[in-house]
Amino acid sequence: MKRVKFIKGGVTAPAGFRATGVPARIKGDRGDISMVVSDVPAHVAGTFTTNRILGSHVKLCKARLKAGKVFRAVVVNSGNANACTGPQGLRDAAAMARLTAAELGVPAGQVLVCSTGTIGIPMPMDRVEAGIRLAAGKLSPTGGAAAARSIMTTDTVPKEVAVEIRIDGRRVRIGGMAKGAGMIEPNMATLLGFVTTDAAVDPSALRLALRAAVDRSFNCITVDGDQSPNDTVLAFANGQAGNRPLDPRHPGWAVFTQALHAVTLALALKIVEDGEGATKHVTVTVQGARSEADARLASRAIANSLLVKTSWFGRDPNWGRVIDAVGYSGAAVKEGRVDIWYDAVQAVKSGMATRGALQKLEQILRKDRFEIRVDLHLGKGASTVYTCDCSLDYVKINAEYMT
Amino acid sequence: MKRVKFIKGGVTAPAGFRATGVPARIKGDRGDISMVVSDVPAHVAGTFTTNRILGSHVKLCKARLKAGKVFRAVVVNSGNANACTGPQGLRDAAAMARLTAAELGVPAGQVLVCSTGTIGIPMPMDRVEAGIRLAAGKLSPTGGAAAARSIMTTDTVPKEVAVEIRIDGRRVRIGGMAKGAGMIEPNMATLLGFVTTDAAVDPSALRLALRAAVDRSFNCITVDGDQSPNDTVLAFANGQAGNRPLDPRHPGWAVFTQALHAVTLALALKIVEDGEGATKHVTVTVQGARSEADARLASRAIANSLLVKTSWFGRDPNWGRVIDAVGYSGAAVKEGRVDIWYDAVQAVKSGMATRGALQKLEQILRKDRFEIRVDLHLGKGASTVYTCDCSLDYVKINAEYMT
Repeated sequence: MKRVKFIKGGVTAPAGFRATGVPARIKGDRGDISMVVSDVPAHVAGTFTTNRILGSHVKLCKARLKAGKVFRAVVVNSGNANACTGPQGLRDAAAMARLTAAELGVPAGQVLVCSTGTIGIPMPMDRVEAGIRLAAGKLSPTGGAAAARSIMTTDTVPKEVAVEIRIDGRRVRIGGMAKGAGMIEPNMATLLGFVTTDAAVDPSALRLALRAAVDRSFNCITVDGDQSPNDTVLAFANGQAGNRPLDPRHPGWAVFTQALHAVTLALALKIVEDGEGATKHVTVTVQGARSEADARLASRAIANSLLVKTSWFGRDPNWGRVIDAVGYSGAAVKEGRVDIWYDAVQAVKSGMATRGALQKLEQILRKDRFEIRVDLHLGKGASTVYTCDCSLDYVKINAEYMT
Repeated sequence: MKRVKFIKGGVTAPAGFRATGVPARIKGDRGDISMVVSDVPAHVAGTFTTNRILGSHVKLCKARLKAGKVFRAVVVNSGNANACTGPQGLRDAAAMARLTAAELGVPAGQVLVCSTGTIGIPMPMDRVEAGIRLAAGKLSPTGGAAAARSIMTTDTVPKEVAVEIRIDGRRVRIGGMAKGAGMIEPNMATLLGFVTTDAAVDPSALRLALRAAVDRSFNCITVDGDQSPNDTVLAFANGQAGNRPLDPRHPGWAVFTQALHAVTLALALKIVEDGEGATKHVTVTVQGARSEADARLASRAIANSLLVKTSWFGRDPNWGRVIDAVGYSGAAVKEGRVDIWYDAVQAVKSGMATRGALQKLEQILRKDRFEIRVDLHLGKGASTVYTCDCSLDYVKINAEYMT
């Protein structure tokens, strides 16, 4: 990672991007309309929720990314998910794109849309439209922070990050912002992520790189399966850095994909840090699985187990709940081979408790962050998941959040 | 169900069974060794956890049920799961069977064993053996209630039930007992169920009937997937009622399977009733699914969703979280066809909110028990799951339970 330098800023750190965030009274007095615009046509890649219920903006973005070649902007509203809103919801999403394009003077098909918030409620289009007009007049090459604030729902802090690398002797920047308050976000768990880069990137290579980066970042934190109808990550590449277009044969490909992963992972970890009511942040690694798929099943079963998560909150080194989750995960397991560590302390060896470790384990459970590592000793499959505990505050927050 | 009459009692309600429960100081002062004995050799069927980590007793029971033809007894201890205890655990389970057989004067291979409690800790065999000797001397044809008490771990009430039917003009009884405190039981979620009947039943027919009954009862409440290494249901049929052996061609087969299901369902519902910290009991039904498997996926996704369960606790008719769970469940879904009811009030029609239902929905959410029904309008698959909410007390209980 030494060739990837973290710098200040977010989506407007790369050259040729402007952004803003403005209040449009969709969710109260805070900012709730964001806009990110590229000065020139950009290639865009997207990854979307696998939920079979899809927010209106997901349908619109998928269709446009399939049909279009270049894009100029994305407009985002928070406070209303525009999901389960039927044909009117689709018309509203298209209207948001159309109005944004008109304000920016670009083709309507070159604007993408994202929404996050309450579902099942018609979009307050009068407010949304006023907000779009307001935002279009406030775009700024230093507007990334405002944009990051206005996409928040129950997030307690805005989440943005930027990095710099060199490719073809040129300075290349990648910036990003995201929202999503923890493992499970009450407002339908929506995760939105936006990445911008001034690198020139071949369109299909950009899709490849984004998919790989998201798989090892955002997809390692949405571990409870509560995927929302609106989860979306979009990456814009506008070529303003002047490098030769990147693809897997380009000598700069490795550093570019490394930098892209650094951006998505940093954003994903910020989401876990902001986890609802979380008191502990836990890295769960399963190694030695028969396959990578098995490792993923096992690591997610541990990270999603309510019994495991509440035991962390209770500072209880209850490895029995961990091995239990491994056992029902669907991964191949041979009981007599299972080893489990909490940080550097081995709790289980060959499927049985180690002796005399309890006091050391209890000390680890008092820490704010620690790692649980399970070795199945059956193969080379490995997977890491970033998660947090389930606290009393988690239940309070999610019980009190009203429709 | 009118031919199935509920009667008093549990595992000793059928003729030819004796039982008891005694304290052996495995988990304090309460009863923790139970024994159920048939006066004559009985056919036995069993269903077991699908966890890949298996408690010692599961390994023993599976091997004996495969090898043996008839059985006389099961000995059960609570307080120690005898799981993740390696080869010594297997030797201890065999020793429990051997000692019980010696005390009863029956072949050692005709005794089965069950354990529930903390995992990873060696069995305190001196106490267990003293308890077995004590229990063997206290067996009684009215000892079912004592046995039901001594299998409890965090259960707050013992769970037993019995029914009576007529087959071949004979009075046939089926009794049962179970333990397991709610959707997720802190002590490794172990569910143990024991069914006795004085009916004569063909051995393979008994397996068939038990599997079907368990699928529509105990398997409809272990909905969080936190299946323990020890989950076990055993059914003993000793033929003392004097009927012709039952199999699917016998005219009494339907009433027998109906009665068996009534026993297992009653026990399963008692477990949900005793759910840890539960304030609401919710029946989740998905119908109109493309297949029964799809219906099961969708109903379990709803019942297992932490977002859904905390919204029930918060009395929030948040159908968005319900349709979200259906969407990521893996079941085939067409958004525009989804209908959702809370009891008799329709919250969602054709994938969109109904108008003016919110106040009525809020009234339903204030009730202690209600039903959520989802119709996918894609086929004939249907599935029902019995579950409860996730309360602040749930987290407290599971955070405070120490290894």
